[in-house]
Amino acid sequence: MSRPRNLVVAQSGGPSPVINNSLRGIIETARELPEIGTIYAARHGIEGVLKEELLDLSAQSAQEVALLRTTPAAGSIGTCRYKLKPGQDEDFERVIEVFRAHDVGYFLYIGGNDSMDTADKVAALAAQRGLDLVGVGVPKTIDNDVGDSEFRLIDHTPGYGSVARYWMQNVQYANEENSGSCPADPVLVLQAMGRKIGYIPAAARLADPEREMPLLIYLAESGVNKEQLADNVADCVRRHGRAIVVVSEGFHFGDIGEVKDAFGHTSFSSSSITVAQLLVNYLNETGLPAKGAARGNVPGTDQRHSMAYASPVDLDEAYKCGEMAALLAASGQSGFMSTILREEGSIYTVRYDEVPLAEVANSERAFPASWISAGGTDVSDEFVRYAMPLVGADMVSLPIVGGRQRLTRFEPIYAEQQLASYVPQADRK
Amino acid sequence: MSRPRNLVVAQSGGPSPVINNSLRGIIETARELPEIGTIYAARHGIEGVLKEELLDLSAQSAQEVALLRTTPAAGSIGTCRYKLKPGQDEDFERVIEVFRAHDVGYFLYIGGNDSMDTADKVAALAAQRGLDLVGVGVPKTIDNDVGDSEFRLIDHTPGYGSVARYWMQNVQYANEENSGSCPADPVLVLQAMGRKIGYIPAAARLADPEREMPLLIYLAESGVNKEQLADNVADCVRRHGRAIVVVSEGFHFGDIGEVKDAFGHTSFSSSSITVAQLLVNYLNETGLPAKGAARGNVPGTDQRHSMAYASPVDLDEAYKCGEMAALLAASGQSGFMSTILREEGSIYTVRYDEVPLAEVANSERAFPASWISAGGTDVSDEFVRYAMPLVGADMVSLPIVGGRQRLTRFEPIYAEQQLASYVPQADRK
Repeated sequence: MSRPRNLVVAQSGGPSPVINNSLRGIIETARELPEIGTIYAARHGIEGVLKEELLDLSAQSAQEVALLRTTPAAGSIGTCRYKLKPGQDEDFERVIEVFRAHDVGYFLYIGGNDSMDTADKVAALAAQRGLDLVGVGVPKTIDNDVGDSEFRLIDHTPGYGSVARYWMQNVQYANEENSGSCPADPVLVLQAMGRKIGYIPAAARLADPEREMPLLIYLAESGVNKEQLADNVADCVRRHGRAIVVVSEGFHFGDIGEVKDAFGHTSFSSSSITVAQLLVNYLNETGLPAKGAARGNVPGTDQRHSMAYASPVDLDEAYKCGEMAALLAASGQSGFMSTILREEGSIYTVRYDEVPLAEVANSERAFPASWISAGGTDVSDEFVRYAMPLVGADMVSLPIVGGRQRLTRFEPIYAEQQLASYVPQADRK
Repeated sequence: MSRPRNLVVAQSGGPSPVINNSLRGIIETARELPEIGTIYAARHGIEGVLKEELLDLSAQSAQEVALLRTTPAAGSIGTCRYKLKPGQDEDFERVIEVFRAHDVGYFLYIGGNDSMDTADKVAALAAQRGLDLVGVGVPKTIDNDVGDSEFRLIDHTPGYGSVARYWMQNVQYANEENSGSCPADPVLVLQAMGRKIGYIPAAARLADPEREMPLLIYLAESGVNKEQLADNVADCVRRHGRAIVVVSEGFHFGDIGEVKDAFGHTSFSSSSITVAQLLVNYLNETGLPAKGAARGNVPGTDQRHSMAYASPVDLDEAYKCGEMAALLAASGQSGFMSTILREEGSIYTVRYDEVPLAEVANSERAFPASWISAGGTDVSDEFVRYAMPLVGADMVSLPIVGGRQRLTRFEPIYAEQQLASYVPQADRK
């Protein structure tokens, strides 16, 4: 066996409650593998590579690493929305230069489709430049939009089960709120994340698989217009005295003054108004069902870092994806993403496998049209059967010390910088 | 001892995670007391009395009653925003008539200042009309606005400790989100409930009593204007690279198109825009710190029914307030509210006591001005010492069955109606 070489792990895009558990899976596995030397995290994703900010994870205590399990979001090593776009040749060459300077033989990128593309391109360029680099992807997104629509590349992404659990439990509570406070407050609007793909709002159905609540669910792709939606709500209030309306942030209800991030994705939390607010205003203005009768919640980033509602299944799967990625790296298999594939049969079982990064990068997932109910106000039992196993049977126990949660706090121990400082191309004025 | 007479309990105003635990305290205590006969809940507060909709709580299973402990909000018996205003004489007479028809000797009203006023007036009218009725109040509000500013009538209201814990834990997570996602998303704005009194946004400080986070806290009463706030944020981003801004829904940042409820209170969740949105837009438009750099969360009702973040101290205290109220009722002491008073000394201890309803109804609490830091961007250590014991040392364990939470489900067993139907005065067209 050849000498051990160092590993760099980085994160990209929005965080999830379990993203750090994939990181933990990588660290706790890689540190046991003789092929792998020092484990570094690029601070704030690929920007940390470009700026040569490499946090030494091998120097951190085992306890802080263990606490990553229940530390949500990406504060520990950071994430980024910096994209290595085609044409940013200097950036690509800089990445290779930094990896060479720190004897990096393994690059693990935790993220969505875009990140899988980046990991693939970096590994390909390294090969061209004669750097022996294994590039491996680790899947992550709360909106479950990685891979293909038929679940051949991945069944679901780590992160989704936890946000689904958040919605399951919070819609249970919202139903207590709404049923308790009607008739004064008959309409409660809840805005869910997920941009153009409806897995997150769909998860509201998990709160009520028997359909006992007056619950209306609108995906961005539901095919319902503004007037139909308002009619549905008024009708629901007429029949049940109240309505809980879960609506995707990406549902088109009018101009929200959208703002786009570096990936060209709409950043709904930064828009000048939200769909929930537009809907509340429309219902209140049109008097459907009565002026001031609708109110709205926009939990925003809460749903992707509310750790108490994380799914234990999701936590475990996120870990295993990290572990699998470290094993793939050590075995020298470049150009793959670790993945979760569901086994056939009525009992939920998964296996962890590998799929080519290029296939993931070139795939695009859609919410199955057959899972949207006729009329576009609900999702089907097939969706419930798909999603219910992902939320887990119980809640996660959190380490509370003196009332507050004990979160991972890494020491700021960085690799010594070997190169001249560098300004990432997109950051130059 | 005279024959047992029946009890009616009702709730008013916005719910809390622990309001049902006061109800449980009442039921589990009253059912053991020989003075008390059947325990009824007025469905949807005083409206249920007017409409003679009396849910039979004595007929419910002990298990469903026990599950009230972790069932948030007011879905089990309902609450209302219907106010018995002076001059609504028919309504007042109807209440007495309904109580007489059902041999009600005890009326327990769970709510805030307005409800204490109602309970007091109903008891006084009953006495005038020759109906022997004991009226007792049970305190409840998430915004801790019951009683006086010097904490002589009540130290804090049941409900506040849980929403404080929600903010403590969620600001810990928001800090992970914000530190992880900067520099792309440097400003995270979180909107807190509490109208014109700042106890809820202040609780964000409990996440970081050592002041290590770039956290700015704005109460409605902070005395900061729009430009100062934006300057504070820009300055915080310059110094720390990021900022978490917790702002009260009642902070004046511009016209929010407010909607008022039946009590004349602003219903911020129904306004045509929120302060968080106005702030996000202002920061993004003025480019402080950069276009699209601010995003906002408006958790709305989530913070008052997110049961996983309930405070165990708050749960216990809510129960004891219900228990105390039942004991006061059985002992024939009309015109009092059960209350929580803090004992002197550095170790947190409370005693449960009684205070006159009229005094509570005529009091008005303000957030102590001395607890707002100079500059209006924070709260003081005195506030932290006051509030920290209320959030408890650990989290509450929830009964999860098959993934979802098992919530109280009462059987729809109602007292037989004795009177002609009645339309509450304020509901008449």
